[in-house]
Amino acid sequence: MKVSKFMAPEIIFGEQSICQIGECLSRLGAKKVFLASDPGVVEAGWAEQVIHYLKQSQLNYHLWTNVTPNPKDYEVHQGLGEYLAHECNAIVGVGGGSVLDAAKAIALLATNGGSILEYEGVDKITRPLPPMVMIPTTAGSGSEVSQFSIIVYSERKAKITIISKSLIPDIAIIDPQTLMTKDRRLTSSTGMDALSHAIESYISLAATPLTEVLSLKAMRLIAQYLRPSAASRYNMEAKRAMAMASLQAGLAFSNAILGAVHAMSHQVGGLIDAPHGEINAILLPYVLEYNYLAAPEKYKNIAEALGENVAGKSLHEASRLAMKAVKELASDLEIPVRLSALGMTEEQVEVISRHSIQDACIVTNPRDMTVEDVKELFRKAL
Amino acid sequence: MKVSKFMAPEIIFGEQSICQIGECLSRLGAKKVFLASDPGVVEAGWAEQVIHYLKQSQLNYHLWTNVTPNPKDYEVHQGLGEYLAHECNAIVGVGGGSVLDAAKAIALLATNGGSILEYEGVDKITRPLPPMVMIPTTAGSGSEVSQFSIIVYSERKAKITIISKSLIPDIAIIDPQTLMTKDRRLTSSTGMDALSHAIESYISLAATPLTEVLSLKAMRLIAQYLRPSAASRYNMEAKRAMAMASLQAGLAFSNAILGAVHAMSHQVGGLIDAPHGEINAILLPYVLEYNYLAAPEKYKNIAEALGENVAGKSLHEASRLAMKAVKELASDLEIPVRLSALGMTEEQVEVISRHSIQDACIVTNPRDMTVEDVKELFRKAL
Repeated sequence: MKVSKFMAPEIIFGEQSICQIGECLSRLGAKKVFLASDPGVVEAGWAEQVIHYLKQSQLNYHLWTNVTPNPKDYEVHQGLGEYLAHECNAIVGVGGGSVLDAAKAIALLATNGGSILEYEGVDKITRPLPPMVMIPTTAGSGSEVSQFSIIVYSERKAKITIISKSLIPDIAIIDPQTLMTKDRRLTSSTGMDALSHAIESYISLAATPLTEVLSLKAMRLIAQYLRPSAASRYNMEAKRAMAMASLQAGLAFSNAILGAVHAMSHQVGGLIDAPHGEINAILLPYVLEYNYLAAPEKYKNIAEALGENVAGKSLHEASRLAMKAVKELASDLEIPVRLSALGMTEEQVEVISRHSIQDACIVTNPRDMTVEDVKELFRKAL
Repeated sequence: MKVSKFMAPEIIFGEQSICQIGECLSRLGAKKVFLASDPGVVEAGWAEQVIHYLKQSQLNYHLWTNVTPNPKDYEVHQGLGEYLAHECNAIVGVGGGSVLDAAKAIALLATNGGSILEYEGVDKITRPLPPMVMIPTTAGSGSEVSQFSIIVYSERKAKITIISKSLIPDIAIIDPQTLMTKDRRLTSSTGMDALSHAIESYISLAATPLTEVLSLKAMRLIAQYLRPSAASRYNMEAKRAMAMASLQAGLAFSNAILGAVHAMSHQVGGLIDAPHGEINAILLPYVLEYNYLAAPEKYKNIAEALGENVAGKSLHEASRLAMKAVKELASDLEIPVRLSALGMTEEQVEVISRHSIQDACIVTNPRDMTVEDVKELFRKAL
C-alpha cells in the first residue's frame, strides 16, 4: 500500500459563520487585508458584510474585484500590484471558485514572486504564503479547502493547474446563507462541479479510504439536494446540504486529486471561457463511460450513492447505472448536453486535446489515456 | 443550525511512513528533538527506528521514556524539566495514547509555562506550541490527530481533560506496521477505545455531517477488522484497516467531542489506573442503554454499521441491536464485563461519580445526566 497524505484547513461551517471573519483574521495576525471579490458578489451584498466585520475588528482593507470567471494570469498580476501597493499582509477571498483561485494565486506571488505561470504543476512553491481566509459563495469549487489554483495562461488560451499544500487556506468559512443569492443556472452548474469532484476523486488512482468516504457522502447529498437547491433560493435545508456536499467533495479531491474530466474541462475553459461546471457536466458521462473498465465495483457504489436501486442486479448492470444517474441529474437541471452549445468547435479539438493530456489531473485518472483517446471523447461530446 | 468547527493535522498514512519523520521535523524547523516514548515501545524497536531517521536528517534528540499508562502530572513536569535542560525545540511522540498525551502536555508547558493542572477544560492555552509530530503505535487513542490531552491529577487521583486546538499536532504519521508489535490484549482494548470514540462522537450533541460520516466508517471498519486484528499480529490488511478506523474515529471525536463513557472512564482510570480501552468497553453498553432515549435513529445506523441486519425491523427493534453488537464484540475479544474485575469497588462509586460529572466530555453527552444517574450506571457496571 502506498503512503498517502491528507490535509485540511481549519473549517468553520454554519449559518452566520461569516461574522467570524474579523476574529479569524486578527488571530492570524492580519493588519491590512486584501479583500478579493467580484462585481456579482459585491452586488449580492457579501463583500459589504465582510467589510462590516473587518471594521468591527479594527482591520484595514483594500477591496479588489477585478477578476472574471476563469481567472486570467494578467488579472492575478494586476491584483498582486494592488496587494503590494496597499501594503497588505493577509488575503480574504469572498466569491466563487474563480475569485478564490485568483486570491490564492495572488497570495502565492506575494511571498514567492515571479509570474504565476512559473508555478504550473505540483509543489513548485517554496516560501510560506500570507494568511488566507476563504469564504465560498457557491457550493461547487471546493477551492476554500483545496491545494489547487487554476489560472488561464492568456497567451496560450489554456489553463494551468497549480497544486501545492501551501495553497490550502488557513481558514475556510462556509456560510450556507451565501448560497441564497445564486441563480438557478449558477446553482446547477456549480452543483455539477461538486458532483464531478466527488466522482473523480472517488475513482482517482490516489483515492484513500479517508477520501472515499467523503466522496461517497458528497454524492449522496448531491443526489438528494441539488435538485431542490436549484428549485428554490430559499430552501435552507438544501443550501446547507449542498454547502456540506461541496466541502466534503473539496476535501476529497484536494487529497485524492481528480481525473480526465477536469484535465479536459480546464483546457476547454481556457480556450472558450465557458462555465466550468457546465463543461464538467457535459464531459462527465463520456469520461465515466471511458473509465468504466478501471473500476466497475466503484461504479456500483457511485450508482447506489446517487440513489439508483442496485439490489438484485449484477455488478455490470448495477455499475452502469452510474452513467444513467449522472445524465438524468444533468438533464433535470437543464444543463446543455453538447460542448458545441457552449461554443466549442471541431477545429479546436486538436489543440485542446494536446493541452488536456498535459494537465496535472490526467495523472490520477484511473484509465490510461492517449491524446487520441481524448480527441475521441471530445468528438463524442461536441 | 449551530456553527461548527473542524480541524485536522497534516496526516501521513501508510506502511513505511515512519521513515518520513526526519524530513517532517526538518520542514517544521526542528533542531533538537524531544523524543517521548515508553519502555514497551522502545523494546518493540520503534524508538530506535525513529532515532535512525532523525540521525539521517542530522537532527539531535533527547529520548525520554519516563511515562506510565494513564500519564501522571508529575511525569509531565519531570519531562518538561528534561525538555528545557536539553534545550529542545520540537517534540515527537512515538507510542500509545499515554505517550502522545504526555508529549502534548509537555509541549503545552514548554511555551505556556505553569503546572499542567492549570489547563484543565476548554481553550485555556494562549501561546503557540513547539512543532509536534506524533506517531501512534496503537490503533485506538486518536491522540495523534485530536485536540485532547488527558492527564492524571495525582493528588486527587482524578483525570483532567485538556481540550484546545493548540494540542492538535502539526503532523500525524500513521504507519500500520507499528501495530504488529501489540499483543492481543492491547489490540483488543485499544480497538474498543476506537469504537467508543466512533460511537460517542456519532451521538454527541456536537456531531456534524462531516464527523458523522467519519464515525460511521470507523464503526464499519472496526466491526469488520478488530476481531481478525486481535487474532493475528501479522494480518496486515486488518492492521491497516484498524489504523484507518482509529484515524477516522480520532478526527470525528476531536471535532465532535465525546460523551458519558469517556467522562466516566477518565475518572475510573484516574483512580484505579486500569487500561482505558477496557474501562470504555465495559461502560459502553450501559451508557448506550442510558442514552438510547436521545437518538433512536442514530442507534439504528450504529447497529447497521456494526453489521447487524436491520432490514425489515422496526426502528425500536433495529436500534436496540446497537447494544447487542457492542456486547458481542467485547465478548469475542474476552474483555472483562465488570469494573470490579479491574479493581473498582463500591466505595469508590461516590467520588468517581462526582468527578465524572465535572469532566469536559459530559457536556456533549446526548442525554442529560445528574450525579445520581452516573452512580446508577457505575453500580450496574461494577
